[in-house]
Amino acid sequence: MTSLLVNRRDLSFLLYELLDSEELTERERFAGHSRETFDTALDTAHDIATEWFLPHAAAADEHEPTLGADGVRCLPAMRAALATYVETGFVAATQDEALGGMQLPFSVFQACFGIVTAANTAAAGYLLLTQGAANLVRRFGSPAQIETFCRPMLEGRFFGTMALTEPQAGSALADVRTTAEPAADGSYRLTGGKIFISGGDHDLAENIIHLTLARVRGAPAGVAGLSLFIVPKYLINADGTLGRRNDVATAGLIHKMGYRGTTSTVLSFGERGDCVGYLLGRPNHGLACMFHMMNEARTTVGLGAAMLAYTGYLHALDYARTRTQGRPAHAKHPASPPVPIVEHADVKRMLLVQKTFAEGSLALCLYAARLVDDAFTAEEESARGDARLLLEVLTPVVKAWVSDVCLEASYQSMQTLGGYGYTRDYPVERFYRDNRLNPIHEGTNGIQAIDLLGRKVTLEDGAAFTLLLDRMRTTIEAARSVERMSGYAEALDQAVRRLSATTHTLRQRADESDRFLANASLYLWLLGHVVGGWIWLEQARVAAHALATAAPSEQAFYQGKLLACRYFMTWELPRIEHWAALLERFDDTCLSARPECL
Amino acid sequence: MTSLLVNRRDLSFLLYELLDSEELTERERFAGHSRETFDTALDTAHDIATEWFLPHAAAADEHEPTLGADGVRCLPAMRAALATYVETGFVAATQDEALGGMQLPFSVFQACFGIVTAANTAAAGYLLLTQGAANLVRRFGSPAQIETFCRPMLEGRFFGTMALTEPQAGSALADVRTTAEPAADGSYRLTGGKIFISGGDHDLAENIIHLTLARVRGAPAGVAGLSLFIVPKYLINADGTLGRRNDVATAGLIHKMGYRGTTSTVLSFGERGDCVGYLLGRPNHGLACMFHMMNEARTTVGLGAAMLAYTGYLHALDYARTRTQGRPAHAKHPASPPVPIVEHADVKRMLLVQKTFAEGSLALCLYAARLVDDAFTAEEESARGDARLLLEVLTPVVKAWVSDVCLEASYQSMQTLGGYGYTRDYPVERFYRDNRLNPIHEGTNGIQAIDLLGRKVTLEDGAAFTLLLDRMRTTIEAARSVERMSGYAEALDQAVRRLSATTHTLRQRADESDRFLANASLYLWLLGHVVGGWIWLEQARVAAHALATAAPSEQAFYQGKLLACRYFMTWELPRIEHWAALLERFDDTCLSARPECL
Repeated sequence: MTSLLVNRRDLSFLLYELLDSEELTERERFAGHSRETFDTALDTAHDIATEWFLPHAAAADEHEPTLGADGVRCLPAMRAALATYVETGFVAATQDEALGGMQLPFSVFQACFGIVTAANTAAAGYLLLTQGAANLVRRFGSPAQIETFCRPMLEGRFFGTMALTEPQAGSALADVRTTAEPAADGSYRLTGGKIFISGGDHDLAENIIHLTLARVRGAPAGVAGLSLFIVPKYLINADGTLGRRNDVATAGLIHKMGYRGTTSTVLSFGERGDCVGYLLGRPNHGLACMFHMMNEARTTVGLGAAMLAYTGYLHALDYARTRTQGRPAHAKHPASPPVPIVEHADVKRMLLVQKTFAEGSLALCLYAARLVDDAFTAEEESARGDARLLLEVLTPVVKAWVSDVCLEASYQSMQTLGGYGYTRDYPVERFYRDNRLNPIHEGTNGIQAIDLLGRKVTLEDGAAFTLLLDRMRTTIEAARSVERMSGYAEALDQAVRRLSATTHTLRQRADESDRFLANASLYLWLLGHVVGGWIWLEQARVAAHALATAAPSEQAFYQGKLLACRYFMTWELPRIEHWAALLERFDDTCLSARPECL
Repeated sequence: MTSLLVNRRDLSFLLYELLDSEELTERERFAGHSRETFDTALDTAHDIATEWFLPHAAAADEHEPTLGADGVRCLPAMRAALATYVETGFVAATQDEALGGMQLPFSVFQACFGIVTAANTAAAGYLLLTQGAANLVRRFGSPAQIETFCRPMLEGRFFGTMALTEPQAGSALADVRTTAEPAADGSYRLTGGKIFISGGDHDLAENIIHLTLARVRGAPAGVAGLSLFIVPKYLINADGTLGRRNDVATAGLIHKMGYRGTTSTVLSFGERGDCVGYLLGRPNHGLACMFHMMNEARTTVGLGAAMLAYTGYLHALDYARTRTQGRPAHAKHPASPPVPIVEHADVKRMLLVQKTFAEGSLALCLYAARLVDDAFTAEEESARGDARLLLEVLTPVVKAWVSDVCLEASYQSMQTLGGYGYTRDYPVERFYRDNRLNPIHEGTNGIQAIDLLGRKVTLEDGAAFTLLLDRMRTTIEAARSVERMSGYAEALDQAVRRLSATTHTLRQRADESDRFLANASLYLWLLGHVVGGWIWLEQARVAAHALATAAPSEQAFYQGKLLACRYFMTWELPRIEHWAALLERFDDTCLSARPECL
């Protein structure tokens, strides 16, 4: 079965050969699972992705949700697809059996969710938010809140949102103005406006649970005064049935370049003074709570970017293998037959960009998901702590570096198809438009860069960063003795040293915060590319080992991994030198630029 | 007057301070002109761009042309805008007065056309093709053909197209199959199909003249057997009135990601066996003729890319100066007021990317247009010859390097606006979609790279390339003695040496054509970035000189040029090292990649 969603052989490689996911089944939480149950989950995801999500992906892009007198209308086909996903139990797949879940490892689940995302990014957007919202209520909610709001989300009857952004504040959550007034019954009344709320209104579920950042009247200014509220679209009666419409109104839909099937809304809270919200977690600790959902969303944004790049790559590869055009430079005679364009060196270059970034990014996203599993279920406390630390430092990389390089991959998918790629007859133009959102939402990549350098690298006096370097050095040492790998191991070793030295230099002036953070974007690319080199060296090391005993039919697959590693080490990794040089000398071209000269 | 189309102050700088366009008025052809007439032309272009082209630009994107029983329908507002452009005489602006033209220098005209393009790229597409087609018929047509086809195009009554691409051949014109059968009256009957024909059908003009590549029956295979034909949509009666509909049918419209207001068509020639065409120029010399139009189109594609980047930059700058959000890193206290985002270092970085690429690309495009003027009107034959040579080597750079870096600029325009930039409420998302076409059409950038290295750099044993290096060295020498410029002069000198050495190394193996051309795209970026450095050093040198005596109100403008030069030299130019290193060692990662491993 050839799929243009993801290479299932590669997914098996990543899960079982690279990440050793079977090892997870030895842990108590996953004891009911086996490679067979994992594969069944992957097969199911692939089946529903192909049968239910893929067929209406283009239509969902062409026919955006509309806002009429009777509310927001989405495509019926999307509702059917989401209902099928719900029926399979995927929404609760990672949750406790007691909550109706399957206790599937998050890393295996993300692989499943990635397949669905590749088929229909816009539809997957609703699921991502619902799964994240349910998780957040489960984690911070009271037993009653879990029963009332989390369980229906896990059952797929309610969907969720993250209601953070306000028109005047954008990424600056310190300036969130939505207020919450305590009511006599212990609930709150919210007043304010939110914008860019994905899934903020639709007809795809019975109810919508907005997890809303707001400020209890009298709370401190800034992020220290933010609390988190559960604001349902419909209030819930004591018996669990839907009650009256809450006072949260859809003031408008936002029309986007891509991701068009996911509604993006302007929401108005408390226009009639009666918007009921319920405090989730402790007052004034809302941002800390919300960060749990934001981090999950950020890693899943990376996964979405990787999957758009991946399916685009497979479409471009399929085209390049079947489209004949032109001749090799040494055989230009017009009487000779045209060749498949995959034989042209420049087309191979474009495909290598895509393969390297798409497969490498998916590997990194699944590695990050595995860290989530380890953070909760690793046997040793130290291993759980290490996983949490690594996850902290890798989250902005998974969100921002992955979305940067995967947009480049989507660019190359279109370029491989030439004029055809620019038309709406092929999906690569949609992938490109959809993928353009990923460097923007869930915190722009510029914000992620500041988070990486300003918070994560300095976390616990650099403990997370040091741990990341250690992990990379372990791979380097393991690769040194593997045939054909020693040169790449040496290249990555040099890169890690460069990253380490640059970071040390930067941190010496961490107290001059403007200067320290001025070129944070360069730092994100630097660290991201070193991590990319690491993930490719690790893949190539595993592949080189497997190649020794691989069946003839498996040779090309493993050699492809070696080829992509070569491409990354030769064409991509050397780019870090320029970024490191600018960082090390605290180049202030941008920082010192006077706005009136721009 | 603040315009978000182009900075008129910058345009004056480029035309009068950088390129000394007033000098042109000393030439006989331009003796009727003066800086005043040039400025009048620019003002007129700006006025009609603002009043007629800009207002329907978003609508033209949203409401694509439709194909119905009565043909293709475009927006009435677009027809009105094009009619206004026609009435001003811009279509024939560069032509002889005897042909109804103004004998405006091409460089000044391109500046005018650029303003119109910034306002409405899709509408400008029809004009670009008409102007190019008229020029081609004027150059190669018989007096009767000029009278019958060229003059009505110059009058804007007829529009033109370039009908080259066929579905099975794409960029491989050697495989064009459309055939032409001689008829008794000296005309031909064409049979075949073309695809991606921009402006191939519409209701914007009385008639459409398709300049069509086809193969006279029995002609040699490959490009040596291609001839060029005039194929009108409506035949022309002896008295010049429109006759019957010719047998060229619109088989379909192509729906694109951007450039949506420009029809892109599938054309079918001779379905009824009666498609009349007229040979233009000599038989079997069609491609050589067509290259005149293709080269003009390629430089104008570069101009279009530059203008989309430019107007996007001005929109982003305007937003960044007025949008307040966040605080400096050293003053995070929430009680302090948020600052305009233009004060954040990372936003300044994004704006510098845009400024450097947009202004630098426009400078390069106008320089190339000036070479066209010099090729035809320079006093000395040697100067005309030099201009022709430089134009040959710079054409792929203007098309491909400019469209690459200007798409990056359009990316940054959107990123500057964050979530708002991704919505269709702001035009930057349209600029980004429109600009994505430019690396594809008129020969993909991969094709341009092969043209640059395979043909242009080796042209006349490297004469064009040597001349380009000489021009760059002249700038370097002039800049060495200018205050604050010597460091940049040295940096560019090193870059030119690196380019020269790399080119020498490559050419030693030019006979191994596959290996020689394998990394042509790297070579295009290398040469492009060195040319970019040159154009910025030259602008900064002129600005530094002017600063000495500039009025206070002019200081920020000139300092902005120095700032952008600094950015290019510090952040961009060092990137060439990596590309040159891969090229010099004939890296064969892509060339040797086996398709089955991709």
